[in-house]
Amino acid sequence: MAASLVVEDMLRTYPADIGQVDRQKLIRCIEECAACAQACSACADACLSETQDLEQLAKCIRTNMDCADVCTATGAVLSRHTGYDANLTRAVLNACAVACSTCADECERHADRHEHCQVCAEACRRCEAACNELTSSLG
Amino acid sequence: MAASLVVEDMLRTYPADIGQVDRQKLIRCIEECAACAQACSACADACLSETQDLEQLAKCIRTNMDCADVCTATGAVLSRHTGYDANLTRAVLNACAVACSTCADECERHADRHEHCQVCAEACRRCEAACNELTSSLG
Amino acid sequence: MAASLVVEDMLRTYPADIGQVDRQKLIRCIEECAACAQACSACADACLSETQDLEQLAKCIRTNMDCADVCTATGAVLSRHTGYDANLTRAVLNACAVACSTCADECERHADRHEHCQVCAEACRRCEAACNELTSSLG
Amino acid sequence: MAASLVVEDMLRTYPADIGQVDRQKLIRCIEECAACAQACSACADACLSETQDLEQLAKCIRTNMDCADVCTATGAVLSRHTGYDANLTRAVLNACAVACSTCADECERHADRHEHCQVCAEACRRCEAACNELTSSLG
Repeated sequence: MAASLVVEDMLRTYPADIGQVDRQKLIRCIEECAACAQACSACADACLSETQDLEQLAKCIRTNMDCADVCTATGAVLSRHTGYDANLTRAVLNACAVACSTCADECERHADRHEHCQVCAEACRRCEAACNELTSSLG
Repeated sequence: MAASLVVEDMLRTYPADIGQVDRQKLIRCIEECAACAQACSACADACLSETQDLEQLAKCIRTNMDCADVCTATGAVLSRHTGYDANLTRAVLNACAVACSTCADECERHADRHEHCQVCAEACRRCEAACNELTSSLG
Repeated sequence: MAASLVVEDMLRTYPADIGQVDRQKLIRCIEECAACAQACSACADACLSETQDLEQLAKCIRTNMDCADVCTATGAVLSRHTGYDANLTRAVLNACAVACSTCADECERHADRHEHCQVCAEACRRCEAACNELTSSLG
Repeated sequence: MAASLVVEDMLRTYPADIGQVDRQKLIRCIEECAACAQACSACADACLSETQDLEQLAKCIRTNMDCADVCTATGAVLSRHTGYDANLTRAVLNACAVACSTCADECERHADRHEHCQVCAEACRRCEAACNELTSSLG
């Protein structure tokens, strides 16, 4: 059996009302934050092993680290529903979308040479889209 | 299409040798750390909304927060292979297994009353097992 | 000798140009993020031990956890200068200022009854101000 | 006025009993975790800007990232006292001491060439010592 996130089960068993948030978009966004954070940590490390290209990848490594940190924080914030604050959720989602977009842009510059940057860029684009879709659904 | 972690793709595209680590056990452990960290953040928050039982759940909330923090750090450490250090990996895996075991014990005490504690306890047990199996495979 | 952060020493020894960022405002903001993250983790936990008031403090605990996560990510992002991206820095600083403001508002509601909320609210306000001042200096 | 951590104020205002933990050693350890996490994030980034030496610093960057993640988690765990679990505290302190020791060893190898590695190594050694002293005091 494949290991998998239990985002949906945790949301289903939340004992109170989660308010007007779109459940499917929320689940998707938490999942993409987890996937993107892991991909970025792994991509930063993969870049560190690209001995021939290390200097060209310095900015990519840095952006990967930022994106991992922001996605981790965003996934945690989105996993909480008690005392929900729309302003805070919006600001965090915006920071996450910007971090993902910035990291995707940088990874895409190296995607033809380094497949880990390609995989990471796709994870960043999915997370960016999930953040933007969730934000739109907040009304 | 369901969102999913890209742990396996990131490991496959890592450009250097990951050493003698068991790839399947490594992938599984990174995935379980991500799942457990999310479940614990969500369970802490779900407990906060259990108005009737809040006092009884205080220790559970605290242990959830610890376990989320330790699983997040462990998943990040395991996602890196460059300059691998077996001692550090072992110590982090041990801390993670202890955090997961402690949190599972506490969540199990409330599992019959609160389904989120049941789901979280199972995620903790899977992560604990994955940490122990990876540790054993390190030789 | 008191333990202390080494933010200034790390910035002084950074080998490249940090660009047009105001050094004193940057140092201050990194320090306040560290202080606020710790205060919020501790305040969430202190609230958990307020047996008589636990239900009234549920939102405070949740906001403390969010603020701790966002401040931790922000402090890490601000500690990096390589491949600096102003858009990302601004978005993260904005999220942090909103998190700190939200948490301070909530802690202040309990500050007359719980001194830990008073101390935490002050840490949040200092961090909010430091984020806003750094943002303004970015031009 | 210099910004500073409020670890001592948060501990003083904790409303319940923290048990038999040595307060001064606990405060010191939380402070050193915060300092070490920040120093390691900054050192990883400083290493990324060492264009001439980047390949030699790859392992240092990786170890810095691990140490930052583990110190952040450890500082958060130590900031919580409710439902204290000695086994978990010990395991986390052990992982943190190992991470700090590993990172200090690596930074020291580069300390004569790169002052940021020297400052970071010292922060790691102080945090390692603080973890070990706190562990010893737990009896």
